[in-house]
Amino acid sequence: MNKHIRCATALALTLGTLIASTSALAQQGPKPEQLIKWRQSAYQVLAWNTGRIKANVEGQYNKDEVVKAANAIAAIANSGLGSLFAPGTETGKGWKETTVKPELFTDKKAGEIAGQFNKEANELARLASAGDAAAVKVQLGKLQGTCKACHDDFRKKD
Amino acid sequence: MNKHIRCATALALTLGTLIASTSALAQQGPKPEQLIKWRQSAYQVLAWNTGRIKANVEGQYNKDEVVKAANAIAAIANSGLGSLFAPGTETGKGWKETTVKPELFTDKKAGEIAGQFNKEANELARLASAGDAAAVKVQLGKLQGTCKACHDDFRKKD
Repeated sequence: MNKHIRCATALALTLGTLIASTSALAQQGPKPEQLIKWRQSAYQVLAWNTGRIKANVEGQYNKDEVVKAANAIAAIANSGLGSLFAPGTETGKGWKETTVKPELFTDKKAGEIAGQFNKEANELARLASAGDAAAVKVQLGKLQGTCKACHDDFRKKD
Repeated sequence: MNKHIRCATALALTLGTLIASTSALAQQGPKPEQLIKWRQSAYQVLAWNTGRIKANVEGQYNKDEVVKAANAIAAIANSGLGSLFAPGTETGKGWKETTVKPELFTDKKAGEIAGQFNKEANELARLASAGDAAAVKVQLGKLQGTCKACHDDFRKKD
């Protein structure tokens, strides 16, 4: 290989690497810390809305407020929270250090509980819309059961 | 007033105060710091989902993902975020110090922008469901315009 060819080859390789790196950068998703912050936020919004429904079924029942809260819970449950548990988010700090246990990323039971959570959330939204306070109360318990199941197995103590 | 009557009166007053205090405690809503944490969380979830839609309209469009994200945005917009700006939350720390300006609590323009935000969010969910990527892109811009309008007037710089 003469000097010019060697030089052209080196240049082509350098450019190729540069283009590949730039492309990888453009395709890069959000950083792990951002994903952890988003999931911590999503669970706070779920807590806010389950708390509102609890206050309604234990006190003065306002159908409109329960519908709003149940719809928010269902939409967040259906939004694809699993993508916020991408590889690389097993440890790290969002708003605070994540309390997820590493088992969540490997145990298929986690996915099963997530599916159950979605199912109960959608049923809660359906019952809220129907306006049956007693049924909403029972269904809220079922939903919270799926929260607890995941916390028991896959969340470290704060 | 004889001694027995005085004693009975004092007891009644004490019991009355006790019952009133307990009742007030039971009716007490979440603390300002909790409300601020919830609203900071809600805006993070909105940011996550607008970011997902932006990535879809600027890159590979996945209708299913856009629908999920748009539905989450609309449900949160409709959930009654105004209640997270209750009196007492003008200052304080949720996940971090609030960046809200005091004007938000007094300027009726804030409520108008909030109404516009809801309207654009619901329209975005409708268009996402119809699956028209170009229309979704335009509508996302309209939604983000309402975010910016509120930030410009009512959010301190971080």
